[in-house]
Amino acid sequence: MMARSEGTLRAYARKIAREARVASGKIACLASKLKDAVLCEAAGRMRRERASLVRENARDLAFARESHLPAHLMDRLVLNEGRIRAMAESIEAVAALRDPVGRVLGEWTRPNGLRISKVTVPLGVILIIYEARPNVTQECAALCLKSGNSVILRGGKEAFHSNRAIAGIFRGALASKRLDPAAVTMVGNTDRRVVNELLKLSEDIHLVIPRGGESLIRKVAAKSRIPVIKHYRGNCHVYVDKSADLKQALNIAYNAKCQRPGVCNAMETLLVHRAVAPRFLPRLQAKLTEARCEIRGCKETRNILPRAKKATEKDWYAEYLDLILAVRVVRGVEEAIRHIETYGSHHTDAIVTGDKKAAEEFVRRVDSSSVMVNTTTRFSDGFQYGFGAEIGISTDKIHARGPMGLEGLTSYKYVVKGNGQLRT
Amino acid sequence: MMARSEGTLRAYARKIAREARVASGKIACLASKLKDAVLCEAAGRMRRERASLVRENARDLAFARESHLPAHLMDRLVLNEGRIRAMAESIEAVAALRDPVGRVLGEWTRPNGLRISKVTVPLGVILIIYEARPNVTQECAALCLKSGNSVILRGGKEAFHSNRAIAGIFRGALASKRLDPAAVTMVGNTDRRVVNELLKLSEDIHLVIPRGGESLIRKVAAKSRIPVIKHYRGNCHVYVDKSADLKQALNIAYNAKCQRPGVCNAMETLLVHRAVAPRFLPRLQAKLTEARCEIRGCKETRNILPRAKKATEKDWYAEYLDLILAVRVVRGVEEAIRHIETYGSHHTDAIVTGDKKAAEEFVRRVDSSSVMVNTTTRFSDGFQYGFGAEIGISTDKIHARGPMGLEGLTSYKYVVKGNGQLRT
Repeated sequence: MMARSEGTLRAYARKIAREARVASGKIACLASKLKDAVLCEAAGRMRRERASLVRENARDLAFARESHLPAHLMDRLVLNEGRIRAMAESIEAVAALRDPVGRVLGEWTRPNGLRISKVTVPLGVILIIYEARPNVTQECAALCLKSGNSVILRGGKEAFHSNRAIAGIFRGALASKRLDPAAVTMVGNTDRRVVNELLKLSEDIHLVIPRGGESLIRKVAAKSRIPVIKHYRGNCHVYVDKSADLKQALNIAYNAKCQRPGVCNAMETLLVHRAVAPRFLPRLQAKLTEARCEIRGCKETRNILPRAKKATEKDWYAEYLDLILAVRVVRGVEEAIRHIETYGSHHTDAIVTGDKKAAEEFVRRVDSSSVMVNTTTRFSDGFQYGFGAEIGISTDKIHARGPMGLEGLTSYKYVVKGNGQLRT
Repeated sequence: MMARSEGTLRAYARKIAREARVASGKIACLASKLKDAVLCEAAGRMRRERASLVRENARDLAFARESHLPAHLMDRLVLNEGRIRAMAESIEAVAALRDPVGRVLGEWTRPNGLRISKVTVPLGVILIIYEARPNVTQECAALCLKSGNSVILRGGKEAFHSNRAIAGIFRGALASKRLDPAAVTMVGNTDRRVVNELLKLSEDIHLVIPRGGESLIRKVAAKSRIPVIKHYRGNCHVYVDKSADLKQALNIAYNAKCQRPGVCNAMETLLVHRAVAPRFLPRLQAKLTEARCEIRGCKETRNILPRAKKATEKDWYAEYLDLILAVRVVRGVEEAIRHIETYGSHHTDAIVTGDKKAAEEFVRRVDSSSVMVNTTTRFSDGFQYGFGAEIGISTDKIHARGPMGLEGLTSYKYVVKGNGQLRT
């Protein structure tokens, strides 16, 4: 925890990365049963050691109170018996998932008799950089272990003691099965320069997943020599087509905006066909006003809803993460698609329509990680997709895109079996 | 071609990247038939315009002779009627491949009735950086077009006129179908600083594929803010187990080393079980001596082959790309795997064995992009795997790994269809 020279920090970063890499070679090949046994052991220890977890957490909370951490961050930091039980259950749920390693993605025979198969393998070492949320420590440790990867955890300093205690539970579970505890490594030094050093170690660390706000992710991406899973912004749209069932559209729009406005898959801009705008918008306004959601509209919107505020160019780009909605009247699916391509973030966009052709056009042309038809953007989520887990959401197209489950923590190898075939 | 100020170069890089990005939005959604028609048109133009291609190539050759380009690079640079015909055929072969875009990778229904499908989409804009090989221009343009991506081509300056002529053929074919020629863009300025500027433009360029030697790739990877497909080294191994059919092992070893020693999937180190080394190595030496291949052996190897040179630690890491073979006697599959993990490059490694358990252990534990059983490392290749194309080989685990066909030029999106489902 104390300040050290840059050289010492670099040596420390190299040491933990190398140890995690060595451990990764060993856990990559573990039998599914053994990995699951480690996870169940960790869940058991979490329940048994709940008192000591609460104690360690209290040290973080005391420090957080002294430094006047905002209430919503304070809330995320708290570990109580209920939350510890939920964490243990979540580890057991991961254990119950299918092993993502060793799955045959494809298998074929070549004319010369070679049998080729493409089989999933772990990535190696994954560095997770996150903010003051102890449950992320548990989630990431469980998912990386399940997928045969080593994990290096670098959480916010506000949760240092809680994170160390949670990582310690996983390390204890590994050691109890005579496995290398370095497979779950917590960065034991809160100096920011350690992260900068880790981000250079592309030989020993194979993927970086920053979990947090856009500025954290941009900082990590700018410094990293290792591939980074980026999740920049969720500027999600719902387009209400002229053929939409307006009652359905109303429910979807309300759900996309108000069910949980602070998350990345909440709607930020509503686009509505001008043929239905005069009927649709007043009903939407009534519902949103009830929820205390502000509307910022284009000129045509404000002709229909005189009380709405004026939207500026900046509003079309905005990820409010709040009870504010930008609204624009468009001439049809073509203009809606162009708006989304111009201002959107390629995260999640939805169309509400009764017209199959309009739906197809929207699905084909909107270049977003999830494209929804007649349902809410809020479903864009690894659990909702049935992955059983979510390590993050990628707004990038390289490696994983969209909600990322265990599969996103794997690569593959080609296995080629012959009986003496030669190349001529 | 002339030197310009940094500001002008930056503006030029931004302009071509932006134009390629705009074009990518349009070609991403083209029907397969139209993409194939463009490719066939390009093949036709290549045949019709062969005289002018040869003329442009002559300008490069004249310059290359003046600057005393080495003979083997000179040979790669030549375009003659035969090679132009081969290029045209290669474009038609790409047209005949299955469209990699719009393939459904998975489809499932959730308990709430949502239908989810995972569908392949193009990546966007791909930057290819390569050396003085005009055929790479044709290959990459064809593969990127087929997969709905825009391509920015940056070839070696020695092939500038040839590359411009080939790219011009694709641009003409695009324009003839009223499509945006910016989908195939050649960097029209050979100043290295243009590449450095392009490598910063992560908003407009989505993937970089450097094709060339390790130093080129390391340079690109160190500078790039865009994900890079890395192909560092091919330090490939063949391990001859004690239960190997020694005649088969001899043929495989000879093929892996001598069939084409200058390529990345050629064998560089042979590992042999000590139980069979005394019988195997003399026969191998006889065959290799015929092929003028040098042997550098460990101590035990030199006890059996007194004429062999001494291998040093450096030899185990070496990618000779030449008629030199490092040989080490090992005590079994365990030691072979450890050697490969310590010195190897995770490219392609083979075991020759009659023992199913040894083969399984080797396949499971060797962490290479291709693992071969009873066949030569030389088969590690997109065409040999039946992909019909190869845009590169990745020694990385992120995004694509190993031989990379059209599939490696795609990402995916989730399409979610409902009938009004809401999140609660």
